[in-house]
Amino acid sequence: MSPYVLNTWYPLTWSRNVGRALSAHQIVEQRVVLYRTEAGQVVAMEDACPHRLMPLSMGKLKGDAIECGYHGMTYDCTGACVRIPGQTQIPGNAVVRTYPTHENMGLVWIWMGDPTLADRSKVFDLPQYHDPAWSAVEGDALEIGAHYLNLADNLCDPSHVSFVHLSTLGNAASEDVPVHSEVQEGKVLTWRWIIDAPPIPLFAKYGHFKGNVDRWHYYHYHAPSIAIIDFGTADTGTGAPEGRRDNCMQIYACHFITPVDQNRCIDHWLHVKNFQASPEVNAALSADFRTAFAEDKAILEAIHANEQRMPERRTIKIAIDISPRRMRRLVDDMVGSEAGAA
Amino acid sequence: MSPYVLNTWYPLTWSRNVGRALSAHQIVEQRVVLYRTEAGQVVAMEDACPHRLMPLSMGKLKGDAIECGYHGMTYDCTGACVRIPGQTQIPGNAVVRTYPTHENMGLVWIWMGDPTLADRSKVFDLPQYHDPAWSAVEGDALEIGAHYLNLADNLCDPSHVSFVHLSTLGNAASEDVPVHSEVQEGKVLTWRWIIDAPPIPLFAKYGHFKGNVDRWHYYHYHAPSIAIIDFGTADTGTGAPEGRRDNCMQIYACHFITPVDQNRCIDHWLHVKNFQASPEVNAALSADFRTAFAEDKAILEAIHANEQRMPERRTIKIAIDISPRRMRRLVDDMVGSEAGAA
Amino acid sequence: MSPYVLNTWYPLTWSRNVGRALSAHQIVEQRVVLYRTEAGQVVAMEDACPHRLMPLSMGKLKGDAIECGYHGMTYDCTGACVRIPGQTQIPGNAVVRTYPTHENMGLVWIWMGDPTLADRSKVFDLPQYHDPAWSAVEGDALEIGAHYLNLADNLCDPSHVSFVHLSTLGNAASEDVPVHSEVQEGKVLTWRWIIDAPPIPLFAKYGHFKGNVDRWHYYHYHAPSIAIIDFGTADTGTGAPEGRRDNCMQIYACHFITPVDQNRCIDHWLHVKNFQASPEVNAALSADFRTAFAEDKAILEAIHANEQRMPERRTIKIAIDISPRRMRRLVDDMVGSEAGAA
Repeated sequence: MSPYVLNTWYPLTWSRNVGRALSAHQIVEQRVVLYRTEAGQVVAMEDACPHRLMPLSMGKLKGDAIECGYHGMTYDCTGACVRIPGQTQIPGNAVVRTYPTHENMGLVWIWMGDPTLADRSKVFDLPQYHDPAWSAVEGDALEIGAHYLNLADNLCDPSHVSFVHLSTLGNAASEDVPVHSEVQEGKVLTWRWIIDAPPIPLFAKYGHFKGNVDRWHYYHYHAPSIAIIDFGTADTGTGAPEGRRDNCMQIYACHFITPVDQNRCIDHWLHVKNFQASPEVNAALSADFRTAFAEDKAILEAIHANEQRMPERRTIKIAIDISPRRMRRLVDDMVGSEAGAA
Repeated sequence: MSPYVLNTWYPLTWSRNVGRALSAHQIVEQRVVLYRTEAGQVVAMEDACPHRLMPLSMGKLKGDAIECGYHGMTYDCTGACVRIPGQTQIPGNAVVRTYPTHENMGLVWIWMGDPTLADRSKVFDLPQYHDPAWSAVEGDALEIGAHYLNLADNLCDPSHVSFVHLSTLGNAASEDVPVHSEVQEGKVLTWRWIIDAPPIPLFAKYGHFKGNVDRWHYYHYHAPSIAIIDFGTADTGTGAPEGRRDNCMQIYACHFITPVDQNRCIDHWLHVKNFQASPEVNAALSADFRTAFAEDKAILEAIHANEQRMPERRTIKIAIDISPRRMRRLVDDMVGSEAGAA
Repeated sequence: MSPYVLNTWYPLTWSRNVGRALSAHQIVEQRVVLYRTEAGQVVAMEDACPHRLMPLSMGKLKGDAIECGYHGMTYDCTGACVRIPGQTQIPGNAVVRTYPTHENMGLVWIWMGDPTLADRSKVFDLPQYHDPAWSAVEGDALEIGAHYLNLADNLCDPSHVSFVHLSTLGNAASEDVPVHSEVQEGKVLTWRWIIDAPPIPLFAKYGHFKGNVDRWHYYHYHAPSIAIIDFGTADTGTGAPEGRRDNCMQIYACHFITPVDQNRCIDHWLHVKNFQASPEVNAALSADFRTAFAEDKAILEAIHANEQRMPERRTIKIAIDISPRRMRRLVDDMVGSEAGAA
């Protein structure tokens, strides 16, 4: 039984990285080679020639087929072997596994499970990403030396910003504000409002706020590996908590996580905001996010190291753990129900 | 059952390294964070927040308490949790283990075992260290990639200096001089005298010896991890072996070993000598010791690598092994009696 | 049971590397120290003093004996202990294992198995190496992070050059030319002829060929770890396939493989050719071989990594695998018959 949810669309890499060169990737402990056909479709194949396990990513693209770099065995974009040099017969088992893919929001998505269940209409989407009134800026692919569910903990947890991200996303005013949690279909939503408080450094820097503000943080976790953090700020007393947000600043910080293996994940992050900005301001904003996520990376890797050293250690639970616990239960149930179905 | 003696005072780090910044250490496979209270006391705590195992050394000192850098949980210097942001109730198990500490001879000592047995009057002391007629010079914290008992073998073994340390601590004159061994309470003493022989390079360089000398080497091993090597030189025929040492040079080379884990230890070394010297001479003397101990490190790491490759290999015993064997039996008995008591 | 053939002469290192300094080597998971006696004989000894497992290669050569660098135990070139400082009696088990050695073709050969079976007349030889009409040029000791039998696969396989070595040893003209295979006593021979085709880049560069050529590739694999690749070129239609080779260019590319352990091997390669050349041309030819073998190394290390990740994966067999499969059966039989005899 795989320890991963398999029947789901995982983000794998930025679309901009996939072209007419072969590229190698890893997800749920599997190696995958990606390329784009002459017509522009993304093909994903297991990155191992079934003959000697040579990585196909070290071969050559010939039209829409891959030629293995060792003996020239050639596979078309369905994974079928179409040539074995030096012989005319092709054995029936000369096939490479392929995986369904889709592109959305600047990312290539891959389905590692049963391909008959892959429904491209279910690939995650954030409508504002496509809305010209909003502005989307791609960030990085941040590799983190930790289990992806530990990153998921962090992304179901608005409270850590008050301690971890003091130069960017948090300040002391929110330290003691409790969080709320709700399970929805395949999702965990965690949120809190901070009323009549100073703006966080990010909004103080890029916004127009003169005094105290009301600010919200809605952490939408879509199991197993997507987090959309909706956070925003309005002048206090202008009715933002009641829904009047005409003059607010709002950002969706999006985290699209690739679970590489039990010890690594890749956080593909981008942001979508309700205001336009110059390339310089966009770059400065990305730099601030980069600072914040590097702080998370340092924490998650230190925790991962301690967990590896003390696998038996029981930890204590506190109030802010409610969403992380619900998130893990949701993922466990998904893994369990796939095992049951299989 | 721990493979280490726990109910003992271990040297952990130089006192000079511990202040109002958090510092991370490892001993007997445990991670420990150290800091000094506002009143100057050294506090030692397990380096893991019981909430998510975040290293507390990555947090902040707030007065005499540590605030975890992830969610702000705060522990006073007894390890008790005194704050959980976002909630008022503090669960009874929100406690971090602390360890008794003491300072002596420029080092922080730690007790990793049952704290009710920790008696600060039992921390190791060398009286000459405090005697103004003598001169103490701190050396390094030398990390060695070997089991600490292999270093202990070396420190129960005057014979190796004739082969390993020819530029500093030994010469060929002593190659065939047998060693003597005696077990005392919690100790193994190993010694030999070399009579009417050239001085070793160290004493030839810093001493006043014109001709042959009588020289002694007393290796005091205090189980499990302290070695005091008393060695000295007097002009031959002046009665040193009978106890007349008025005109001798004498040095206590002290080794305070931290067993980090099964593959690493740290040798905190210093020397205490019966003569005063300029800072330049003290530094030159330390440089010579540094040369010698680097020779030991190279040997011990090469042996450790061979032991890892050949765990089943039986080795042969020779005459000079008597003290190393007694030392290991002593340590085994200490570990065994702790297991029996538990 | 060892996974290696032991009763065989393995190439270990270039003769030029062995002199009056101790050198450390590894083969079939054993560490070996080499040196040359005052009379010029190569001595091979296990690289571990039986006292504490100190590598003897870190000791000193004293005449034809090794003095251990830790306690001065001294072993003569038969491995017998001849001195233990500080005691007169030498225990009967104070012996280091030695291994039979021989020198030929610029290499030191070692026998890791039963020394009573070591017959120096059986050390591999290529007569042309010694023939003044031919020219031998030593290459490198190429370390490859792969099992030595995966390198052996490659050296029983003329077909890969058409895909892997396009700048040196192969071209597309041979892609579909089938290979032939024959098992001989302790050997697998694999060959093919390419008739009336363009010369490969190497012969086009260094040869005198104006038009199409006939070319041959005979891969002689001597189990378990020697491959001699006889390849050559003649103008097409001049009768080379029928044995008339007066005006041909011919090279023996020799691979003498040291199996280091299950994850590493060293390919000592050299070439012997039927024409003389300037030092510059010889160096250029070696550089071309170096390019080609670096291509093999990249492939073999990538395959090794995939094999480690997927130890259970079944691979498919194709026509060109006949010789690699026969080679592995031959080696398996040799290992099995040694186990049966023991």
